[in-house]
Amino acid sequence: MAHITLPIDVPGIRGPLAFRPDAAKHLLGLAETILRQPASLEPGEREAIAAWTSHLNGCMFCMKSHAAAARAWLGPERSAALDRLLADEDASGFPPKMRALLDISRALQGCVLGVRPEHIERARAAGASDSDIHDAVLITAAFCMYNRYVEGLGTREADERDYEPMGRRLRDQGYCPPGA
Amino acid sequence: MAHITLPIDVPGIRGPLAFRPDAAKHLLGLAETILRQPASLEPGEREAIAAWTSHLNGCMFCMKSHAAAARAWLGPERSAALDRLLADEDASGFPPKMRALLDISRALQGCVLGVRPEHIERARAAGASDSDIHDAVLITAAFCMYNRYVEGLGTREADERDYEPMGRRLRDQGYCPPGA
Repeated sequence: MAHITLPIDVPGIRGPLAFRPDAAKHLLGLAETILRQPASLEPGEREAIAAWTSHLNGCMFCMKSHAAAARAWLGPERSAALDRLLADEDASGFPPKMRALLDISRALQGCVLGVRPEHIERARAAGASDSDIHDAVLITAAFCMYNRYVEGLGTREADERDYEPMGRRLRDQGYCPPGA
Repeated sequence: MAHITLPIDVPGIRGPLAFRPDAAKHLLGLAETILRQPASLEPGEREAIAAWTSHLNGCMFCMKSHAAAARAWLGPERSAALDRLLADEDASGFPPKMRALLDISRALQGCVLGVRPEHIERARAAGASDSDIHDAVLITAAFCMYNRYVEGLGTREADERDYEPMGRRLRDQGYCPPGA
């Protein structure tokens, strides 16, 4: 049971979002913007950074739902790299630029002051642009928020079988309710 | 110098916000909602939770700017409790409910999975409502994001003398640009 009485009894972030719709509007709009709107990184790559941050934070609901969204975008072949990342923290299946961005993400998840000039230099040497670096930082930062919102209020996980359709829905319909 | 080229050369979060205005709209709207819109906690109490989280995260720009906003709301007498909190991590100047909420904030800042049922029970025993607990969790979560956005991109601090007027401006004009 969640730590507070939520208006709807559903797994993960939807209960907290229903508790304070004025904040939910911005939380969902931010997710839509940083994960799905056009940017230098593909949506599948951005969802992978979200899943990776959530894995490092130990937030199972966010990790599984955003991993499912990443798989929906990437397709089965490219998803094998994500599966290895989340199972064994082995990023070797990703191209060098994504590996460098995943390293920035790990440094920043662990510590607010964790990103060093060397992280940025390695990302640039691997071909990362300012936009790639900005988005890796903001997605990691945002999931350090979403993960805390979900876990800090003590919400529960979804059923295992629900994540795959959730991932396809997030790819196809996104984060904002119609008309929002 | 920041880790990426930002459109404006100003301290703290304004440079990153100017880099990606579509995300900035939601980041500013969220701050306005959780810190200034009507809620069970006063704006000064909510700004104090933001400053406390930023202190624990070591983000000086956010700590000093939101401490200044909290002082602007609370007035000199009640600000003494905040000064002791940020100087010595001594929360004894706050009433019991705020002390319990600051404890929830510390637990959640340190670890995504850090909030225990005992934290919630102590807050309820001290008179905290569902809304108080929700907002303490969401403000802490959000500043674990804002702090990482500011520090992960390597922005710089403001001049010491600029924080006090910044705090008054945040109290009087808020976070959203006119027309946003």
